[in-house]
Amino acid sequence: MAEARQILSLNRFDGDAAPDLSGSVAALVKRRNATFGASSVLFYREPLEIVRAEGVWMYDSSGRRFLDVYNNVPSVGHSHPRVAEAIARQAATLNTNTRYLYDNIHTYAERLLASFPSELSNVVFTCTGSESNDLALQLARGFTGGMGVIVTEMAYHGNTTAVSEVSPSSFRTRAVPPYVRTVPAPDNYADPVEDVGARFALHVKWAINDLEKNGYKFAALLVDSIFSSDGIYADPPGFLKAAVDVVHRAGGLFIADEVQPGFGRTGTHMWGFQRHGAKADIVTMGKPMGNGFPMGGVVTRPDILTPFCENTGYFNTFGGNPVAAAAGLAVLDVLRDEGLMENARVVGDYFRAGLRALSGRFPAIGDVRGAGLFTGVEFSRPGTREPDADMATYVINAMKDEGILIGAAGQHANTLKVRPPLCFTKEHADIFFAALEKVLAARA
Amino acid sequence: MAEARQILSLNRFDGDAAPDLSGSVAALVKRRNATFGASSVLFYREPLEIVRAEGVWMYDSSGRRFLDVYNNVPSVGHSHPRVAEAIARQAATLNTNTRYLYDNIHTYAERLLASFPSELSNVVFTCTGSESNDLALQLARGFTGGMGVIVTEMAYHGNTTAVSEVSPSSFRTRAVPPYVRTVPAPDNYADPVEDVGARFALHVKWAINDLEKNGYKFAALLVDSIFSSDGIYADPPGFLKAAVDVVHRAGGLFIADEVQPGFGRTGTHMWGFQRHGAKADIVTMGKPMGNGFPMGGVVTRPDILTPFCENTGYFNTFGGNPVAAAAGLAVLDVLRDEGLMENARVVGDYFRAGLRALSGRFPAIGDVRGAGLFTGVEFSRPGTREPDADMATYVINAMKDEGILIGAAGQHANTLKVRPPLCFTKEHADIFFAALEKVLAARA
Repeated sequence: MAEARQILSLNRFDGDAAPDLSGSVAALVKRRNATFGASSVLFYREPLEIVRAEGVWMYDSSGRRFLDVYNNVPSVGHSHPRVAEAIARQAATLNTNTRYLYDNIHTYAERLLASFPSELSNVVFTCTGSESNDLALQLARGFTGGMGVIVTEMAYHGNTTAVSEVSPSSFRTRAVPPYVRTVPAPDNYADPVEDVGARFALHVKWAINDLEKNGYKFAALLVDSIFSSDGIYADPPGFLKAAVDVVHRAGGLFIADEVQPGFGRTGTHMWGFQRHGAKADIVTMGKPMGNGFPMGGVVTRPDILTPFCENTGYFNTFGGNPVAAAAGLAVLDVLRDEGLMENARVVGDYFRAGLRALSGRFPAIGDVRGAGLFTGVEFSRPGTREPDADMATYVINAMKDEGILIGAAGQHANTLKVRPPLCFTKEHADIFFAALEKVLAARA
Repeated sequence: MAEARQILSLNRFDGDAAPDLSGSVAALVKRRNATFGASSVLFYREPLEIVRAEGVWMYDSSGRRFLDVYNNVPSVGHSHPRVAEAIARQAATLNTNTRYLYDNIHTYAERLLASFPSELSNVVFTCTGSESNDLALQLARGFTGGMGVIVTEMAYHGNTTAVSEVSPSSFRTRAVPPYVRTVPAPDNYADPVEDVGARFALHVKWAINDLEKNGYKFAALLVDSIFSSDGIYADPPGFLKAAVDVVHRAGGLFIADEVQPGFGRTGTHMWGFQRHGAKADIVTMGKPMGNGFPMGGVVTRPDILTPFCENTGYFNTFGGNPVAAAAGLAVLDVLRDEGLMENARVVGDYFRAGLRALSGRFPAIGDVRGAGLFTGVEFSRPGTREPDADMATYVINAMKDEGILIGAAGQHANTLKVRPPLCFTKEHADIFFAALEKVLAARA
């Protein structure tokens, strides 16, 4: 989810400062606090009780509907009937593990791998993006013999012990272990340069040198190519390639975390690393893979996977089970049959064009950026590029009052993170524009 | 799955030594090798292609049925209609994350926590047993400020980086990091003593002392109370308490890994640690929780969870989603409505009594042990207690030819691990006895 702590702190339900909650919400919050305890974190100053969802719409317990421009897990649309039916049919027939043969996981593995460059010919199935990134770290460290990993300053790659170590946004202190280095995100808005890719590559090179100087052999650069938790940095396409080339020249691996940009979201390519013309050594997947069914995967080269399997091996009880395969196949079918990648490209461009038009009238909108249906809207103090997190928080809560669900990202939590289900249309974008205009005008 | 490497090496499909496979199996193996690569590990010298499963029965592509006494994931029975229907209904309605309120996860949390001692009042939902154990390690290390963890010699607790470190059976070398200590399993067959609990507690005490002597503060004892991967050691009930008391006196925590014994499998208690009268500080769950739907959980005390949430926090995108909650609730309903815990007790006792009767005629059966529907059958060279792994391998493959699916466990892979779905009946046990008798007679 890439929710950095301070982002949540700006947009979370605070029990102590709670408004008067309505009956059923208040009762649920009370029950929740009793069981979830301190781990309970809810979106919004006044949390939402959701009872059903369909396509791009979520419905609360009062019957009110909300346009969902936040959730990228139900990537082909909430409760998509083809995915739900595939899950239902398979769950009633067979759900076991990959120590037995069954046809659909192999069909799925072949369909999935066909979308990758040919050298990435092996897949290991997991249940979550966290498990995928944890396995990727094991593979990269095993292959290189190094511990050193480079990530961006606000990276979030998951929740296991090892993955938390490479997810500085998870920790209040942002501290990372001595074998991890962080590099600044490729932010060409706050701090523009002519060649953002060259700058990013230089930071990666410095980080590699610093790791090696301190006795930590370099293993991998691990990034999400849309830089979701850092604030969404997509352009220009290809900028990431220079850094990946630096990584390869240093003998390291590039782990492409495709949990956010993967499965066609960026509009022109199935995988975000392809948009940058970069050569990935390990690719990790999660969230949108099963449209909400818990599944993830790691795609890599046999020369990376084989030695790991000989020394340690990997088995994931639920990973690649036939219900996951059925869900995953249905997602690929819907992506193809409904033309969702192309839709992401067309509607994404329309969406950013509309937002840029609005930014002319509302100087609080400092920057609009992204690719396909992943857009960042950065709020700045007018006339400056100084981050305005208060405005982002205001907009998020005011948009909710207008019936639109949205979140924030970035180091200063001042960037709206807009990543709706891929069935989002121009009509939905128009609803968003009208609401944003109203919300910004009220504050102007 | 707790498959130690050498166990699999005794009972896995070996492509190089493959028998002549039939058409559809051969084709699937070929497709599988092309995509799964070195990570492909299949049960049996001649792998099974499974197409459907129901209750305790799995059906292969030729229409042959197999009595499943191996798989504990579909704990209330393969493809149980109530679980499948609950998943189907919820997947078509709403599948989102716990940043929103929705009723069924809170009902599930309450129902689940009601089965625990009252001090274990908080739950965090994950997707797998591995994620649960990884979070448990984070909690225990955060709470104690120590890194030191004690596990059994053949422990398997999962596949993340951190959990692999406490799963010596995962590694060819069995090497563990310097902050992990292994203790011998409470094996009162190979090496009997009067008080197996006192001996186990003494080993734990020595391990704590050794950790601290080497500068590693003790954090936790992490064990599966049925000692599944070590070879299944259940008796006498209560023997684990002495070790747990040692742990608590040393300021450490006891993490009860309930992936194997939990959800009523041991017949007399919902959770394995309760059978030992031991006080658990953190309880981890996985496999049987959703009858195959990927879900796991960690139950603990608020004083352990709260500081972790303040420093790091934990969010799991798929964890506790409404479909998982629906599956989990259906599992609890079926356990109750079909009386499966009591069934596990009654049929488990019947099963072991029958096996002990057989052991009188077949001296290869050295020991029969277990609790509820988790039974170990240890093969020894007649007249000795020397492990006979060849016999176990023979039995597993010969039983498959008789239509019964089973696996092995333990350091020497000479112990049958019998843990069928909990709807296993005396009639199913009789089928097992007849087949085992035939198989052993053929070798005698």
